[in-house]
Amino acid sequence: MQELLLGAAYYAEYMPYERTEKDLEMMQKAGINVIRIAESTWSTWEPRDGEFDFSILIKTLELCDRMGMNVIIGTPTYAVPAWLVKKDPKVLLTDKNGRKRYGRRQIMDIMNPTYRMHAERMIRKLCEVTRNYDCVIGYQLDNETKHYGTAGKHVQRLFKAYLQELFGTAEAMNREFGFAYWSNAVADWDDLPDVRGTINGSFASEFEYFQRKLAAEFLMWQRTIVDEYRREGQFVTHNLDFYWKPDPKKSSHGYSYGVQPGINHWEASDALTVCGVDIYHPTQEYLTGMEIAYGGDSIRPLKGERYLVLETEAQAYPNWTPFPGQLYLQAMSHLASGAEMVEYWNWHSIHNSEETYWKGILSHDLEENRIYREVRTIAESFRKLSPYLKGFRKRNRIALITDNRALTALDYFPVAEGVKYNDILLDFYNALYEQNMECDVVDAQAVTDSPSSLAGYDVVITPALYTASDLLIEELRSFVGQGGTLISSFKSFFTDPHVKVRAARQPYGLTDVFGMSYQEFTVPGLTTVRGLPVRGFMELVMPDGAEVVERYEHPYWKEYAAVTKNAFGKGTAWYIGGYVAEDVLKDVLKKAAAPEASDWKMEDGSDACWPVIVRRGVNDAGQEICFVLNYSMEEQRVVCPAEAVDLISGSKYTAGSAVALKPWDALVLCTTGA
Amino acid sequence: MQELLLGAAYYAEYMPYERTEKDLEMMQKAGINVIRIAESTWSTWEPRDGEFDFSILIKTLELCDRMGMNVIIGTPTYAVPAWLVKKDPKVLLTDKNGRKRYGRRQIMDIMNPTYRMHAERMIRKLCEVTRNYDCVIGYQLDNETKHYGTAGKHVQRLFKAYLQELFGTAEAMNREFGFAYWSNAVADWDDLPDVRGTINGSFASEFEYFQRKLAAEFLMWQRTIVDEYRREGQFVTHNLDFYWKPDPKKSSHGYSYGVQPGINHWEASDALTVCGVDIYHPTQEYLTGMEIAYGGDSIRPLKGERYLVLETEAQAYPNWTPFPGQLYLQAMSHLASGAEMVEYWNWHSIHNSEETYWKGILSHDLEENRIYREVRTIAESFRKLSPYLKGFRKRNRIALITDNRALTALDYFPVAEGVKYNDILLDFYNALYEQNMECDVVDAQAVTDSPSSLAGYDVVITPALYTASDLLIEELRSFVGQGGTLISSFKSFFTDPHVKVRAARQPYGLTDVFGMSYQEFTVPGLTTVRGLPVRGFMELVMPDGAEVVERYEHPYWKEYAAVTKNAFGKGTAWYIGGYVAEDVLKDVLKKAAAPEASDWKMEDGSDACWPVIVRRGVNDAGQEICFVLNYSMEEQRVVCPAEAVDLISGSKYTAGSAVALKPWDALVLCTTGA
Amino acid sequence: MQELLLGAAYYAEYMPYERTEKDLEMMQKAGINVIRIAESTWSTWEPRDGEFDFSILIKTLELCDRMGMNVIIGTPTYAVPAWLVKKDPKVLLTDKNGRKRYGRRQIMDIMNPTYRMHAERMIRKLCEVTRNYDCVIGYQLDNETKHYGTAGKHVQRLFKAYLQELFGTAEAMNREFGFAYWSNAVADWDDLPDVRGTINGSFASEFEYFQRKLAAEFLMWQRTIVDEYRREGQFVTHNLDFYWKPDPKKSSHGYSYGVQPGINHWEASDALTVCGVDIYHPTQEYLTGMEIAYGGDSIRPLKGERYLVLETEAQAYPNWTPFPGQLYLQAMSHLASGAEMVEYWNWHSIHNSEETYWKGILSHDLEENRIYREVRTIAESFRKLSPYLKGFRKRNRIALITDNRALTALDYFPVAEGVKYNDILLDFYNALYEQNMECDVVDAQAVTDSPSSLAGYDVVITPALYTASDLLIEELRSFVGQGGTLISSFKSFFTDPHVKVRAARQPYGLTDVFGMSYQEFTVPGLTTVRGLPVRGFMELVMPDGAEVVERYEHPYWKEYAAVTKNAFGKGTAWYIGGYVAEDVLKDVLKKAAAPEASDWKMEDGSDACWPVIVRRGVNDAGQEICFVLNYSMEEQRVVCPAEAVDLISGSKYTAGSAVALKPWDALVLCTTGA
Repeated sequence: MQELLLGAAYYAEYMPYERTEKDLEMMQKAGINVIRIAESTWSTWEPRDGEFDFSILIKTLELCDRMGMNVIIGTPTYAVPAWLVKKDPKVLLTDKNGRKRYGRRQIMDIMNPTYRMHAERMIRKLCEVTRNYDCVIGYQLDNETKHYGTAGKHVQRLFKAYLQELFGTAEAMNREFGFAYWSNAVADWDDLPDVRGTINGSFASEFEYFQRKLAAEFLMWQRTIVDEYRREGQFVTHNLDFYWKPDPKKSSHGYSYGVQPGINHWEASDALTVCGVDIYHPTQEYLTGMEIAYGGDSIRPLKGERYLVLETEAQAYPNWTPFPGQLYLQAMSHLASGAEMVEYWNWHSIHNSEETYWKGILSHDLEENRIYREVRTIAESFRKLSPYLKGFRKRNRIALITDNRALTALDYFPVAEGVKYNDILLDFYNALYEQNMECDVVDAQAVTDSPSSLAGYDVVITPALYTASDLLIEELRSFVGQGGTLISSFKSFFTDPHVKVRAARQPYGLTDVFGMSYQEFTVPGLTTVRGLPVRGFMELVMPDGAEVVERYEHPYWKEYAAVTKNAFGKGTAWYIGGYVAEDVLKDVLKKAAAPEASDWKMEDGSDACWPVIVRRGVNDAGQEICFVLNYSMEEQRVVCPAEAVDLISGSKYTAGSAVALKPWDALVLCTTGA
Repeated sequence: MQELLLGAAYYAEYMPYERTEKDLEMMQKAGINVIRIAESTWSTWEPRDGEFDFSILIKTLELCDRMGMNVIIGTPTYAVPAWLVKKDPKVLLTDKNGRKRYGRRQIMDIMNPTYRMHAERMIRKLCEVTRNYDCVIGYQLDNETKHYGTAGKHVQRLFKAYLQELFGTAEAMNREFGFAYWSNAVADWDDLPDVRGTINGSFASEFEYFQRKLAAEFLMWQRTIVDEYRREGQFVTHNLDFYWKPDPKKSSHGYSYGVQPGINHWEASDALTVCGVDIYHPTQEYLTGMEIAYGGDSIRPLKGERYLVLETEAQAYPNWTPFPGQLYLQAMSHLASGAEMVEYWNWHSIHNSEETYWKGILSHDLEENRIYREVRTIAESFRKLSPYLKGFRKRNRIALITDNRALTALDYFPVAEGVKYNDILLDFYNALYEQNMECDVVDAQAVTDSPSSLAGYDVVITPALYTASDLLIEELRSFVGQGGTLISSFKSFFTDPHVKVRAARQPYGLTDVFGMSYQEFTVPGLTTVRGLPVRGFMELVMPDGAEVVERYEHPYWKEYAAVTKNAFGKGTAWYIGGYVAEDVLKDVLKKAAAPEASDWKMEDGSDACWPVIVRRGVNDAGQEICFVLNYSMEEQRVVCPAEAVDLISGSKYTAGSAVALKPWDALVLCTTGA
Repeated sequence: MQELLLGAAYYAEYMPYERTEKDLEMMQKAGINVIRIAESTWSTWEPRDGEFDFSILIKTLELCDRMGMNVIIGTPTYAVPAWLVKKDPKVLLTDKNGRKRYGRRQIMDIMNPTYRMHAERMIRKLCEVTRNYDCVIGYQLDNETKHYGTAGKHVQRLFKAYLQELFGTAEAMNREFGFAYWSNAVADWDDLPDVRGTINGSFASEFEYFQRKLAAEFLMWQRTIVDEYRREGQFVTHNLDFYWKPDPKKSSHGYSYGVQPGINHWEASDALTVCGVDIYHPTQEYLTGMEIAYGGDSIRPLKGERYLVLETEAQAYPNWTPFPGQLYLQAMSHLASGAEMVEYWNWHSIHNSEETYWKGILSHDLEENRIYREVRTIAESFRKLSPYLKGFRKRNRIALITDNRALTALDYFPVAEGVKYNDILLDFYNALYEQNMECDVVDAQAVTDSPSSLAGYDVVITPALYTASDLLIEELRSFVGQGGTLISSFKSFFTDPHVKVRAARQPYGLTDVFGMSYQEFTVPGLTTVRGLPVRGFMELVMPDGAEVVERYEHPYWKEYAAVTKNAFGKGTAWYIGGYVAEDVLKDVLKKAAAPEASDWKMEDGSDACWPVIVRRGVNDAGQEICFVLNYSMEEQRVVCPAEAVDLISGSKYTAGSAVALKPWDALVLCTTGA
């Protein structure tokens, strides 16, 4: 992009009265320079089968052209009109609970032919109508696409064909899935039962893997249609989103948290020219910046490029009413991860239906307010920063490996009561984040699709990588052999990709690399490590060459190691056998990957750490741009490690001078000759 | 009535052996003078389709005629016989979970033609058989009628017709309901989807409003049938009931608590000549009298007359085994609210089925017991009080406005996790109750149906009146303008009656009356008012002329007001923007409506307040009758504000003399020349 | 048996690669002398309808014959092949939630004719193939058979026929079930509604009683088939199991706990030549031995003989990883109750499907491990003990009466929130167990089936025996009259066997025996007995001749007794009216049944009690064999009451000498001349 984009989703269709021009004027006064429109309201664009009415859309586009507002067009395929369901009820999703009732979005079967036919017609019409407006800078395919648990007869037929292709014979499938158990073996493919009743974790996980593929292919199908229309320079994106964590303490309506179970981002990104993301996170006293950072660190590596924040919160829900300064801090945090657009969901609050309290920048009175005024301040900073963030690139040396096959399988066989794959993953991520050790979050499938790609990193971390292919294990062996540092946790490498437990000593294929093995695991009971309780699960690690870094504290389990370290080839391999407390985990990661931490210090000489967050990158001009963020209600004072210029205020700092951060403040510094 | 009635529901049909005459003798010995019979047992009266057997009923009526026992006949339409369901399975309710299975009561579709036809025949037969007995003083229509969530195809067709009538065009409906959202707009009425799947709060709420209308119309339909038979002087009543609060701490099986979501009492009361009510409440250490008072205060204003307590608990469930004296106190409390009948559910405990532990006056042994003996004491007091309570009337000056449209909508969009409309309403009611500020609970629909009716009050309070019509808002404006005191809480006036949020500054239509407005709201986090935590929700109130009565205590929200007070016209308007703690709420209400409190004092000179409850009215002779109730396990001493006579004991008190209240005691005093 | 058996369930079919011979060699090295095979994998033995393949089985049997390994053959009827369901979908269970989906085990309808036909063919084929191998010592019918809630149309027709037989007329049924309530009376049998919708506790409980009968008859049906094939000396058994208690604190996956609701053990045992049992229990710090003892004490009395532990845990689930020594202690504890076989589930861990973490002796690596080595130690002790445990018999003087009709009814009408029948029962059992008062757990039906059988005991205890027949009550009266000690708790004798509450003073039929009665009951609120809170429920006991042993502490309920004691005839009857705290309960039981406790003391002279458990019996040679078990992490020192020889170590003790028990240790002593 030529400039940083600041925007909002906008729905003229939802407004209680016509005010498009007024809205656009208010936006421009605030410095908003992009809107996303058209997605969500198929029934408005096609009120009856084959009867199209894009008048609201055209009016908006004409105004945008005239006023110089950028526009992203979303295909409205994630919510179907009632007439389509009346025409063919099978358009509605069938999942494990049966056929859905009409009403909610994302309840159609993405594989249904009637749906596909009508969606295609809608996309084509929409592209025809919109492509030639100057203001249209790109397209968003669908919205937060997932498989939605689609499991109707048609989908199960496709799944059977997939399995036939995968295994050749039913016998081979029986063997790999362990179908003999509880009399589940099938001699003939036609005996394959409804997958929705299965208790076989391998079969169930394979189906979810297959379902994720359908979701990714659905996006690719939309891409090929849009490609027939879009002009040179118009991008194609999609708002990838995350697991949605229910956590009433921090957020009444949940928030973005870790790996998405319903689609594989790596696979999905094939359909996009630029990646986009939706990030919603706790705020007020629960705003830590972690979810914003995780979101960016996991989307940016998909294409190794900058990305668009297509949705993030303005003041949604009473618990997301930001404290003064928080919106500003959040926006700068997105830039710090490499975003080149920040778009709020949404411009206005909605007066009916479901998300009435998922408020936008404007409250329901549609007047200027405190939030609107803070957005204006953000826009001013965006304008100042635009030239300095041209070609902004991160250069992280740590790769954190994630895998949604591991997620599916581990959530089928949970580590402990209430502990999900994403909880473990985010504990690891957060331990890095709070110690200012920046990382890329890398999909395991990306590693095996691009052999030797790990060579680009110094440190690789695998939290709870429950399923792992032989190829991936080989990549990790060779990464360590060639000098890398591998840090793996409990529950890694336990099964093959079809969730068959490896019938050999664990951690499978890497006992020599780690210099240890284990045969047993246990609930910790009263076990501690460094006096802190182990959380829910621990392996009874028997060192075999490795140095014991931490040992369990327990009358019987004290014979076993909790954390080990081993030299292998030119590199080093750490194994964390117990779900140790956060502080222990932080310490181990700091020890194992110390060089990757930032060089910022607090005034007392300690390493800068949360609530002071430092995130860095380099721009086209080779300048290091450093975001220094204060995620707290108190002022913080840090020491600038080098000469620096504040790109917003113009203040200059000498190396070693103190930098004061106001509560919820964000400084953007150029630390190498601005 | 000529005398106060004390009675019990009675089911000779349920008895393990024939003992009707013995039961009636035991009742008369205890002083019971009324029973309610016949409801619940359709299958007994009509064992086969068209084959009637009223022998048990006739025997009972003959005995009652002979023994001088009053009888209320209930129509047995709320529980259908198995043969009727076998004849037409569609008699069974279809709700959002599908068709019910036979067994439970209240699972028929009240709109089903087969059901209606058979119910009508049953009612006619029953009236024919019973009308001419002298003992029959009245009829109860059905039992705790509600809509039960009826949502079958037939009902949805009726709903569509209702919407067509309401809106004229689908376009108008789309606009008002905001159906563009998530592609829900319908161009043709025939596209209207099954309402059970909707995520549109307006559509869903309108359906519940419509369902409530069906329930009220069902009662009116029964009334017209009964009217063809009943003799002069035989009343028609119904046992209106309340929201049923699950609250395991206070009561294993829930209890009566606030506005009923399943029928509108105001609408339903049209079908009655005298209102009736069922009140179940916590007891033992959880007995506060609040639910008894609320029940009376909300039923009495429906017709501005006295009412019948058709059901209340004797010793149901282990947690409702009353302490000695509590039954007596409860009975007096019903009279204090204006009841002229107190009827226990039920006479005997039941030996089988579902409510085996919902015990009656008699335990399963069917012998005299502690409860029976306490009922006898109550009957003695009733006989003494009867002459003094002729024409007993309350003259409350406070109206507390309730609305089950607001309830539906607010429970769809909850104020905060676990906070329901009724919780807020009852917090307000209780703050009045415990400070001895008596009020009428008035349905919002009653206000708009009878313009200027608020003029009869000095103070109007609207807790969480989330939906409000333009007309209601106009009534409130004019009430304040003409000198009234209005006290409104957060979340009032937010939407129109179709749950469309008002697209203007809040509180809608009344910002000048209150002298403030707000654009934002938030979870309180650590916010306090007077050091006490705000509960779950608060609006960021910006005063604009109003006096700030309370301010939020919080680093950022301290700029906003929590409670304001404003002069408008000849009156005063208070606004409570945050869900403040109970003690703060009490204090604000006391300040705003001080003159309405009772003039009774404790011995230390403080105002009498809970556990001492004072409730008053005036009888036909113009005498003030004052109930002084002790809701505690300790003796209480209060000061009598005027000369008084104890109508039970005959004791006399001079003004200013001390009155001793034993634990769980109730005194009934005539304070103006007995 | 000639020798004690130690074994494991074994599934060659599940193995990730062929290793049967290796497995058998490893077993023999460990001292394992029996395996259970063949059950669970119908689809392996009959991959297509009528196409049989027993090759894996035959290979295993040939190896066992050659190597001298004993084998139990299980019929694989509890998990059906997919092809059978495809052939006739009605094979799948219909329960109250509708038809099941294929996948899980135990989801077939045990009454379905197609299932029966195919199951019979499978059983016949299996018997033919296996009966003539020398190694086959017996057959296990099915697996943990229950009724699974079967409630399809066919089953309901059978139930109707059962009711017709039971009651003769619908009128009689209406009366006994109280069907008049809520209009449920049926004049014609054809009007009988789907039992799944009922709210009638009598009807619902009768159906569950009927369902349990079906399950028992199903086992008898299998027995008659197996009888056609089995050789002289081959036994028939079944692994009876218990209620499965969810209790996340103690065990992630629940554990065996009290009376089984899904089948009646007493009825089921008719089909067996020797009783078998599955016992799973908490371990690590939650291992108390109580569940092991309860399991044995309830299975052994069924036939008054020794029994087989067909399944118990090795190291299943992280929370069942035993501490060193615990496996040994557990195995000895099974013997202490009279088991003559201990068989682990299972030999190996499973690499796919559902129970992947229900680990066996071997972990997934299939190598020797810590558990394997502990099993070897157990086997050594088994070999030493075998000669001393020939004809080992218990001679307990206390009978604890259980009843699954009472369980069904009381869980329909719970004593208090979250309190189940089994909770009360196990509290009583545990109070005995921890005080080393050994008991037999006796089914109420066994008592009435064998009149005067109680005469064999000194003490009879009835915890919460909610339903009781006239005959049972008569047996108890006569037991006390003739000198026995009866101890009954609250909620006993309240209803007849059809869950109709007795319409007379409670405890029904025994008020003279206990010398007290009650009419009321209540939640305890703040009531205590000896300062300890009463748990959830208490009856207001009015003594009438009885001595008051304990009184309630409460402002109002202090007038009532909590525990009474009464002389009646030649005996004594205790009544425990409140659910008193565990310590009070223990004390009452100790007082009432003191002579039954063991004569072992701690070093300080106090009676030996948990964590020191003493369990005794007598062998064929008339020697007393005494198991002294230490269920704790600390060493314990006890005093030997008589001369004794340690049968494992050979150590000798004189009477009065100290015996040291290591943590989790088990000594087996011969106390009368070894």
